[in-house]
Amino acid sequence: MEYYYDLLSQPSRALFIILKLSKIPFEAKEIALATGVHLTEEYKRTANRFGKVPCIVDNGFQLSESIAILRYLAHQKKIAADLYPSDCKIRARVDEYLEWQHENVRMGCAMYFRKKVIEPMFLKSQPDENEIQKWFYLMEKSLDIVENQWLLNTKFIAGDKVTAADIFAACEIEQTTMAGYDPCKNRPKLKIWLKAVRENADFPYNEAHKQVYQWAARMGGTLEL
Amino acid sequence: MEYYYDLLSQPSRALFIILKLSKIPFEAKEIALATGVHLTEEYKRTANRFGKVPCIVDNGFQLSESIAILRYLAHQKKIAADLYPSDCKIRARVDEYLEWQHENVRMGCAMYFRKKVIEPMFLKSQPDENEIQKWFYLMEKSLDIVENQWLLNTKFIAGDKVTAADIFAACEIEQTTMAGYDPCKNRPKLKIWLKAVRENADFPYNEAHKQVYQWAARMGGTLEL
Repeated sequence: MEYYYDLLSQPSRALFIILKLSKIPFEAKEIALATGVHLTEEYKRTANRFGKVPCIVDNGFQLSESIAILRYLAHQKKIAADLYPSDCKIRARVDEYLEWQHENVRMGCAMYFRKKVIEPMFLKSQPDENEIQKWFYLMEKSLDIVENQWLLNTKFIAGDKVTAADIFAACEIEQTTMAGYDPCKNRPKLKIWLKAVRENADFPYNEAHKQVYQWAARMGGTLEL
Repeated sequence: MEYYYDLLSQPSRALFIILKLSKIPFEAKEIALATGVHLTEEYKRTANRFGKVPCIVDNGFQLSESIAILRYLAHQKKIAADLYPSDCKIRARVDEYLEWQHENVRMGCAMYFRKKVIEPMFLKSQPDENEIQKWFYLMEKSLDIVENQWLLNTKFIAGDKVTAADIFAACEIEQTTMAGYDPCKNRPKLKIWLKAVRENADFPYNEAHKQVYQWAARMGGTLEL
């Protein structure tokens, strides 16, 4: 199986960590999004017709969308059982988070980072303060829902163990530190949770976040957990 | 199992059709979003903590997010086999579409409808032409990807049979007709596909879309398929 990813992409990191924790072997195809190689016709033909990361090519079968890839591998019983539990209700809670995340944590954190950092850096444009504020609001609201709903009664999102939901969530939330933002400020549960996710996912998590931590340090966003 | 839904909500319709086609019995809890009942504390406590539709309460187990509900029921082998096939690759293609849809077909079509029709109607505000244009662009781009990618080589999204992916997609796309828009114009494959989805999903599809068709007729958006 070939795995195409850029560790500066949140879902690329999440899937990278999950593949490593599940001990699924893969041929690493690191793609630097900044070079635009993912937009070439060759990439679209041989890897992902939508021109995005992450994606896999499994014996010729091309599949994109990180959560679809998670499920494809789980279907084949390759994902570590704890990360995507077979218990019907726990798995449903993991799925519920992963579906909820798209228009909430993912969109808020990713768009805030993009408008605040990426577009001014790469497009050399003035930051659009209206756009930044709009996504800042969604980011804050989504993180508050993680604090007050998803972590209301449980140590992790779907219970007392780390699952894929926590890893996907943490990778989105870590992204904000590259904009110098502190997602844990005034969110004590989220802070304890993020530390626990980092510890549980251990080496692969650190490997995946190496560039993020360096970038965050330059932006004054290093988290003290 | 209690099913909370509003047939003017796209994922509510999709799940309604899938439940009916799969012959899954449910206690119908119709929620009129226009009344705001889904935002009450009682609804959040007894049905869905996020205050949205659709959701289920299955013997006390509360679950939201339409796609998570689909998977929860499929996990228990309750969903009709054709709609969410057990073949690993076909299911992966269904999942890939359902994940892709969030920020594409769903967001484009839903936000266009909201900015064009709902907000001027309910907030009595002037239509915001910039916002309408922005979502119109995403809607058109997403529908073009359905035409040129998802339906490139296959009759339906994941092969030669209707699956949950087609039903979710069709329910999002039908919504645009309530804004007087014709999603099939200049998209011949999409037109043939939408007609085939309607025919395959038959009675439940018509039942679910009764209000949509009436509304579309008032807006001049009735589709001639």
